[in-house]
Amino acid sequence: MAPGDFKQAGLIAVDWGTSRLRAWLVDRKGDVLGQAESGEGIGHIDGNHEAIFERLAAEWPRVPAIMAGMVGSRQGWREAAYVPCPATEQAIAARITRFDSSGGRAVAIVPGLVVDAPERDGDVLRGEETQIIGIMQREPGFAGTIILPGTHSKWARVDGRVIVDFQTYLTGELFELLSRISFLRHSVLDDGSDLSASPDFALGVERTARDGLPFLGALFSVRARQLLTDVNRADNLAYLSGLVIGGEIAAARTARRLHHDGAIRIVGSKSLARAYVSALRILGFETEAIDGERAVQDGLATMARSIGFLPEKTA
Amino acid sequence: MAPGDFKQAGLIAVDWGTSRLRAWLVDRKGDVLGQAESGEGIGHIDGNHEAIFERLAAEWPRVPAIMAGMVGSRQGWREAAYVPCPATEQAIAARITRFDSSGGRAVAIVPGLVVDAPERDGDVLRGEETQIIGIMQREPGFAGTIILPGTHSKWARVDGRVIVDFQTYLTGELFELLSRISFLRHSVLDDGSDLSASPDFALGVERTARDGLPFLGALFSVRARQLLTDVNRADNLAYLSGLVIGGEIAAARTARRLHHDGAIRIVGSKSLARAYVSALRILGFETEAIDGERAVQDGLATMARSIGFLPEKTA
Repeated sequence: MAPGDFKQAGLIAVDWGTSRLRAWLVDRKGDVLGQAESGEGIGHIDGNHEAIFERLAAEWPRVPAIMAGMVGSRQGWREAAYVPCPATEQAIAARITRFDSSGGRAVAIVPGLVVDAPERDGDVLRGEETQIIGIMQREPGFAGTIILPGTHSKWARVDGRVIVDFQTYLTGELFELLSRISFLRHSVLDDGSDLSASPDFALGVERTARDGLPFLGALFSVRARQLLTDVNRADNLAYLSGLVIGGEIAAARTARRLHHDGAIRIVGSKSLARAYVSALRILGFETEAIDGERAVQDGLATMARSIGFLPEKTA
Repeated sequence: MAPGDFKQAGLIAVDWGTSRLRAWLVDRKGDVLGQAESGEGIGHIDGNHEAIFERLAAEWPRVPAIMAGMVGSRQGWREAAYVPCPATEQAIAARITRFDSSGGRAVAIVPGLVVDAPERDGDVLRGEETQIIGIMQREPGFAGTIILPGTHSKWARVDGRVIVDFQTYLTGELFELLSRISFLRHSVLDDGSDLSASPDFALGVERTARDGLPFLGALFSVRARQLLTDVNRADNLAYLSGLVIGGEIAAARTARRLHHDGAIRIVGSKSLARAYVSALRILGFETEAIDGERAVQDGLATMARSIGFLPEKTA
């Protein structure tokens, strides 16, 4: 694509996490003009952040870049110290790390959040704060719980444009370890799509989130039902998924993060969001799924406006 | 060692599990004359059970062999169908699988146990029934809980020489996955000894088993305390161990497997038994540790007597 196509470009918005680097070229209104992606996540590279980023953005104009995610960690390009919760959008914007790269590009890195939770020695996140800001931007009056499922699921409480606190669950990572590496791998298929459509997914959710079967006491049932019932390995993978997601929901409920009178938003990829919407519906909670990519784009644009990388929106 | 040294030999007692094959040559009273061991567990071999066993026992006299563990599974030498709980020692002995090997050796395989637990689609074990029988032999009046910690921990209820039921927890396997493969591996040492001596072990146990922090909600704290406190990676491994064992105990308590008025025995290797004794003491339970190797030897000798492979004990 010729550079001329990008004459409206105002900013590169970047989500640079542990496993992936994703960038969007956006115009001055925040609309996406182009995108680029690579597997060069912070966990997969050894320094050289500038060179890696400039290679990805080589075809694009030399506009300022704003970044969120592990790029702001100690292993990232430049550390952006955690902002304590409760945190407003303004408090986060005020702590954005700004610098000029050695090639002269203006770069901003959004800080992560930290919560003081003595009962579990605190908690941290990086990247999700930007998705939450994106949702607060779309729904300024939102009060309730925002669930960001993934390798490390985050449950955040939001009220009056304040991120009150959050908690992390290792759900996605545990599911991968259990289904692909543990001895339970012999009892389940190694991969599956649309797991939450299986009745066995619902059974798993019910056991850990409704019937009170503790997560650790439920896991061996994946093996038992393969030996003692005629379940197939595809449905048994769905069952394991239900146990794990149900276990996360049960843990969040114990931590008082789930209320029948509070709004719930689920932010993530389509299939993951669908699984959580389905699990919560089984338990009587109506939720709304929001595309995770859109949320991070909105959040990055909002942060960019607050530091003058993009002009303020005109109503 | 010359065959003459074994002229009192009456039996080979064999614990043939997923990861290991262990055999003891015992005299007609059940006392151990010699032992042999190999890494040829049922999970590591592809058939050829007789050849593998005969190679291990090549130096020993050609006495009958009695075996327990995965050797009786579908992947084992000969399947020994599960006996349903509640199960007496006599019911288990009556279902021992007996055959002559192609080389003419009398072989007996002790069956595993199955429990009908609809809330988790049942449960199974193989090998632990023999350890439990060994303990019932030592303490004929025992009533209470027998905990067999390990890769797959088992909690069995025993009353009046009956194995009432049991439940399996994936504790040991989860600890290995979390400490060596998950992203938490960056926050803990990859190995440690005497973990339960660390105050951080006690903290982990308290959080999941006393303070009510759900296991899934507690795991990320291993990462948070590394980032936000000055804990070292050795103590943090002890903390993770405490969280996992505490999580198992909490799950067992929910399943009403833990009572202040019931006796508790812990059967396992010295270091693992010590960790469970220590965790349960923190929670106010006094327990007694029993050597797992001794328990399986006692159980195999008891089963051998019941089928005439060894003479009955004379008082």
